Amino acid sequence: MSSSTAKAARRKRLPALQSHERQSAKTRSLKSAIFFSAAVLTVSDSCARGERVDLSGPAVARALKEAGFRVTASKVVPDDSVQIQNALIHLVAGARLVVTTGGTGVAPRDVTPEATRAVCDRVLDGVAERMRIEGAKKTQFAALSRGVCGVRGISLILNLPGSPSGAVESLRAVVGLFPHALDLLEGKTEHS
Amino acid sequence: MSSSTAKAARRKRLPALQSHERQSAKTRSLKSAIFFSAAVLTVSDSCARGERVDLSGPAVARALKEAGFRVTASKVVPDDSVQIQNALIHLVAGARLVVTTGGTGVAPRDVTPEATRAVCDRVLDGVAERMRIEGAKKTQFAALSRGVCGVRGISLILNLPGSPSGAVESLRAVVGLFPHALDLLEGKTEHS
Amino acid sequence: MSSSTAKAARRKRLPALQSHERQSAKTRSLKSAIFFSAAVLTVSDSCARGERVDLSGPAVARALKEAGFRVTASKVVPDDSVQIQNALIHLVAGARLVVTTGGTGVAPRDVTPEATRAVCDRVLDGVAERMRIEGAKKTQFAALSRGVCGVRGISLILNLPGSPSGAVESLRAVVGLFPHALDLLEGKTEHS
Repeated sequence: MSSSTAKAARRKRLPALQSHERQSAKTRSLKSAIFFSAAVLTVSDSCARGERVDLSGPAVARALKEAGFRVTASKVVPDDSVQIQNALIHLVAGARLVVTTGGTGVAPRDVTPEATRAVCDRVLDGVAERMRIEGAKKTQFAALSRGVCGVRGISLILNLPGSPSGAVESLRAVVGLFPHALDLLEGKTEHS
Repeated sequence: MSSSTAKAARRKRLPALQSHERQSAKTRSLKSAIFFSAAVLTVSDSCARGERVDLSGPAVARALKEAGFRVTASKVVPDDSVQIQNALIHLVAGARLVVTTGGTGVAPRDVTPEATRAVCDRVLDGVAERMRIEGAKKTQFAALSRGVCGVRGISLILNLPGSPSGAVESLRAVVGLFPHALDLLEGKTEHS
Repeated sequence: MSSSTAKAARRKRLPALQSHERQSAKTRSLKSAIFFSAAVLTVSDSCARGERVDLSGPAVARALKEAGFRVTASKVVPDDSVQIQNALIHLVAGARLVVTTGGTGVAPRDVTPEATRAVCDRVLDGVAERMRIEGAKKTQFAALSRGVCGVRGISLILNLPGSPSGAVESLRAVVGLFPHALDLLEGKTEHS
């Protein structure tokens, strides 16, 4: 291929560049996400006791980075409502998005959603709904997930399930919403 | 026209007549909706201050009329919970369906859903869910809408987003439910 | 055995064996469901007064048996919140799954969801959501159903609509979740 042909071919690739300019909401989210800090909270008795290696927390952190967030902190706590609430309050002070993994099921020790509601100003029902609807495409048991998404101050808190794959898939179903939601929480809005 | 041609023409018309007879739930709703009054409440700081022309309220009123409702009142209030609650209570006194537009997002000034819950006897989660699910076909950000639908006495209150197109599309996703729901609220039910 | 006899035997046996091997989540649920007891509560003024034959309760009981549950009790109460709550508390004492039919609509006498919430420790939003989403495939009015699913102790309570067909269809949309959920409620979980 001659140099000029290669150039022409490259020129043909331009529509790709143009489609980059007519960039999708997803792409825009990715770009603005880099301005937002995120923290990960693993909620698990066995991880907190050191009896099990936390795979979910690191998997969620990687998925957040892939989505363009700066992961600035991570923590592990047992399935204890007070400890979860304290950790959420602490992490929200330093991050615009705090993502938990674990404790969202129907077992008696699953208390993450209640602890999250306790520290949130408002709950965004549509975000949890979207995770369950997307999850239902893989397993009917997504309907049993009780995870919530809420607002505390100008930060968001999101509950994900405890398994690494479940956590990452649930996060991916909704992470594209957060840069826009975080902008709105700061009062950046085109209409008032 | 010969008798046989007339017959053929009639035969051609019949499917239309038959489909009219096997009329869809949507058509039936439209017919019964004309017996119901509706009011529109625009919730917007800038419209209330007169700094912006209210396009959403009139757009919602038109969509309600198209769906067969008699629009008997409309009002504009700022994003203030007490003023929203007072307006809802006032409008419900004169209309079976009160539709709000604005204040359903995640920004700090968005308080319409909380004000609506405060004046409702019950909330119909499935109606807001249906608006979000339909909305998700156009934009993922429908998941961030916090609008609710509730019952106050024998009236319904529905929260729609603030943009004219978002408001009208959300309304259309659920307006067909209301004539039946309003009948039930009056105690008109085939089973007891 | 001649080749043709073997073929006939295989023909007879194979479909069963193969479908057993490719056993779906539904089949697996069915197997574990036989360990769980269930009770049915019909909520209806007219049935409680003996003015109407209860068709929904028996239809729900049959559907539960088909799903592998042992139906150990059934009861009829009027649309009265205190009587519903007392019946739920009583039935939960003897059954792991209590299914109600009736009183989930928007009419003023429909109080089953409120009575259910009052006796539940937690509500599983995703289960009601799943019933509404499945129901919407048949009728838009599924969005008006206010039925909930909640946890009381180690038992589940599920609200179904009042019509026999609506009740059975809603039950079938979610019954496959319950054996797993009931295992989790007993603390049977692969992760902790």
